[in-house]
Amino acid sequence: MELQDIITDRDRLFLKDDIPEEYKMDYSYKNVAEAFAVALPKTTEEVISLVTYADKEARPIIARGAGTGVAGSQVPIHGGELIIDVKHMNRIIGLDEETMTLTVEPGVLLKDIQAFVEEKGYFYPPDPGSKHSSIGGNIATNAGGMRAVKYGTTRDYVREMEVVLPDGKHVTLGSLNIKNSSGYDLKNLFIGSEGTLGITTKIKLKVLPLPKHKQSILLAFSTLTDATNGVLTILKNGIEPTALELFERDTISYSEKFTNLSLQSQKGEAYLLMTIDSNEEDTINRKVNTVVQLLSDEALEIIPLKGEEEDRAWMLRDNILVALMQFTEYEMLDEVVPINKFAEMINYTKELQEKHGIKVINFGHAGDGNVHTVLMKEELDDSTWQTRRKALLDDLYRKVAELGGLPSAEHGIGIMKKAYFNTMSDPVELEVMRKIKNALDPKCIFNPGKLF
Amino acid sequence: MELQDIITDRDRLFLKDDIPEEYKMDYSYKNVAEAFAVALPKTTEEVISLVTYADKEARPIIARGAGTGVAGSQVPIHGGELIIDVKHMNRIIGLDEETMTLTVEPGVLLKDIQAFVEEKGYFYPPDPGSKHSSIGGNIATNAGGMRAVKYGTTRDYVREMEVVLPDGKHVTLGSLNIKNSSGYDLKNLFIGSEGTLGITTKIKLKVLPLPKHKQSILLAFSTLTDATNGVLTILKNGIEPTALELFERDTISYSEKFTNLSLQSQKGEAYLLMTIDSNEEDTINRKVNTVVQLLSDEALEIIPLKGEEEDRAWMLRDNILVALMQFTEYEMLDEVVPINKFAEMINYTKELQEKHGIKVINFGHAGDGNVHTVLMKEELDDSTWQTRRKALLDDLYRKVAELGGLPSAEHGIGIMKKAYFNTMSDPVELEVMRKIKNALDPKCIFNPGKLF
Ligand SMILES: Cc1cc2nc3c(=O)[nH]c(=O)nc-3n(C[C@H](O)[C@H](O)[C@H](O)COP(=O)(O)OP(=O)(O)OC[C@H]3O[C@@H](n4cnc5c(N)ncnc54)[C@H](O)[C@@H]3O)c2cc1C
Ligand SMILES: Cc1cc2nc3c(=O)[nH]c(=O)nc-3n(C[C@H](O)[C@H](O)[C@H](O)COP(=O)(O)OP(=O)(O)OC[C@H]3O[C@@H](n4cnc5c(N)ncnc54)[C@H](O)[C@@H]3O)c2cc1C
Repeated sequence: MELQDIITDRDRLFLKDDIPEEYKMDYSYKNVAEAFAVALPKTTEEVISLVTYADKEARPIIARGAGTGVAGSQVPIHGGELIIDVKHMNRIIGLDEETMTLTVEPGVLLKDIQAFVEEKGYFYPPDPGSKHSSIGGNIATNAGGMRAVKYGTTRDYVREMEVVLPDGKHVTLGSLNIKNSSGYDLKNLFIGSEGTLGITTKIKLKVLPLPKHKQSILLAFSTLTDATNGVLTILKNGIEPTALELFERDTISYSEKFTNLSLQSQKGEAYLLMTIDSNEEDTINRKVNTVVQLLSDEALEIIPLKGEEEDRAWMLRDNILVALMQFTEYEMLDEVVPINKFAEMINYTKELQEKHGIKVINFGHAGDGNVHTVLMKEELDDSTWQTRRKALLDDLYRKVAELGGLPSAEHGIGIMKKAYFNTMSDPVELEVMRKIKNALDPKCIFNPGKLF
Repeated sequence: MELQDIITDRDRLFLKDDIPEEYKMDYSYKNVAEAFAVALPKTTEEVISLVTYADKEARPIIARGAGTGVAGSQVPIHGGELIIDVKHMNRIIGLDEETMTLTVEPGVLLKDIQAFVEEKGYFYPPDPGSKHSSIGGNIATNAGGMRAVKYGTTRDYVREMEVVLPDGKHVTLGSLNIKNSSGYDLKNLFIGSEGTLGITTKIKLKVLPLPKHKQSILLAFSTLTDATNGVLTILKNGIEPTALELFERDTISYSEKFTNLSLQSQKGEAYLLMTIDSNEEDTINRKVNTVVQLLSDEALEIIPLKGEEEDRAWMLRDNILVALMQFTEYEMLDEVVPINKFAEMINYTKELQEKHGIKVINFGHAGDGNVHTVLMKEELDDSTWQTRRKALLDDLYRKVAELGGLPSAEHGIGIMKKAYFNTMSDPVELEVMRKIKNALDPKCIFNPGKLF
């Protein structure tokens, strides 16, 4: 069978020279190799046929969601890959209120999931900045986002997932049962595996009742250290924030320029933007007061935000990354350290700025110990940038490892963090991962060269 | 090297004829085959030496915690097994308040963990009835217990685990980082794998701040159906119970006889015993009032319980299983169904009682959709019991599968549920599990014959 016999619609199959530009890159990685073809299936059956075809031809396959990845994980790197773009598998199949589960196809966009359930009084907590990412991609990267500090990551909201395996068989992992001690936990193994073990074709997501009230607070600090101390104070005092984001003045300025909006505080060097949610309005008020009491000495300003003001602050936060893209070439990291090492990590990035002569800014999900350190190329010429960048990254990841951290909290390893992931990990752990990969995908058809 | 060279203390090694009786059984399964030896290591190094020895000799190994399992999972079934009992690896290494993690060895008992952290104002939520079980066993079975409905199962509280692999290498899975998208989630794969993939030798557990207030409520219903309807009402109305247990009058009577205590309500056929916890006393009061309002028509009695009264009701609940043991031979199941099918499942067990002429009683973690159906042998002769039991189980598990349920919510598959697990599961899913088992344990040394 040929590809043309599997995907018969002309506009759902691109061969070599007709492949649109977008398939050569993600949001961080570009133009490495040429794909063999891009197929856009509409059904699980078509995915199965494509995988069976590729298995027979020993042709590598890359699954692709919305292409908002930032680890080069869905970019062709060897040449000759078949890209399976699931964007046409984008039906919201329905919400079952009895089990509080939403059934969707993998190509549905996060923003559409959020809008669909919120209209019905429900709430899908995972909230990456990239609202245009697909749920299949979110699962493959175990995406995190703003609300992970209270509600966990994508992993915690996948109840069932149908996957097509490298041999073309398909299987449903997980179930609607709340507890399970019946055999190995395969669902969690596949979540976060970056398309190297299976292609997700249908998902049942857990949703929660929408909290009745929420309120945000912006806190300005004179130094980054004051802000990171503030994070620990908030976490230790039972505030249970829904979101707890940190960004530097330098960082948010890009977003202000790009959106033409201005943040409610212009004081200080670093900010915390946090949200509290609850079904009880007094719980919110009590927590806001507690935050004010706890931090009124340390913070320069504490500004409660509601309604449009709240939306504006979050829009500025959500646009940081897109804004940066307009101003300079950069490399964004995704390191995570245990929460008690967060301040040390973030201060160290500033030491590296001095040591290596690369401008370094930070933003991140402070409540999770996850910082997106950004190295800015600015006026550096290519070769200086590459040399300094490499030296800085060597230092930085050495520190991450020393603090018990990991190279990726939520973006995945892909191709961009592969070298550091492989040197930072325990070789025995990597060996176990490789054995599993080989056992499930002996011909190494699914996303070869990514992860390891 | 011989076993005697690895474990040099005479009282930490039992050879064939000297093996104490307790090693031939767990709480449900007895006297199947004779072990080769029992070794009681004190350190990870000794475990490694034992596994290396067994690997060389191709000798099967069974890890054993406190032996409170109820699936026959740590019982020798082939003959010739080396049992590694970790009970001497029972140090509580310490609580790190900054990361809120408790480091322990695998043989530490659940009750000792709970007492240790509660004294310091913290809280380890998983709460199986068997307070004498070991944390290593809890992890290997992904034990659930009373508080899973609000706080999740053992899985949710393992941050790091050191495991010895079948080839004698050891590795730490998981980390103190809150988020992770760095490679495959091996930690979750090993949790619940019933000693078939690794032997756990050290654990870092997540603990929470101890909630400041709690309160229980006993609700009596005239029928089992009224009680299961009550469960749905409670779950749907934002009560978020810490525990939500259901038992029949018949069931609790055994516990009353055994403990010589009496439950605060003697009315009706079925009960719900629930707990609510919170840091705010008024939240508790509000929720108690809501429960009373919601269920005052449906329930025969609603009795708030505090202090000693609360302890008495829970002691009766915790003793159900031990009480049953005194009165008759029985088989306890551990089925779980999606929460909206719970009433249908439990009613069906009563149909089976009539159809097959075996007394059937139920108790269970109602908030999780997990029911422990108990088949009572009572006066039946052995052969009638076996025939009827088998026919009843065939019907019962067929229904579980039809409702989208699973054979085990929290006890594991072991040997006792192996046949049903294997017929109820998707063959593709089993094949993936087997491929992983073969890849990590090609000589099938770890707990062979269990699970599949
Ligand atoms: C502006 C911006 C903000 C961002 N903010 C966040 C954030 O806050 N938190 C966060 O976690 N990430 C964030 N990201 C990163 C990115 O959005 C996530 O990694 C997202 O999960 C990728 O989803 P996608 O649909 O775009 O996947 P893609 O980029 O298409 O693919 C990503 C990976 O998923 C695999 N994949 C995709 N679909 C499937 C499938 N159906 N089956 C199997 N594998 C599949 C691919 O093979 C690849 O390995 C951000 C990105 C941008 C550009
Ligand atoms: C009265 C009573 C009440 C119970 N109530 C509950 C309940 O509410 N919820 C619940 O979930 N269970 C309950 N159980 C079942 C039982 O207590 C659990 O399954 C418990 O987790 C077993 O722990 P253990 O230390 O006794 O393990 P064991 O019985 O010794 O072993 C059980 C399994 O774990 C493996 N294992 C043990 N230690 C290790 C290790 N260090 N490394 C690798 N594998 C290991 C064994 O190989 C075996 O497969 C109850 C049992 C009884 C008798």
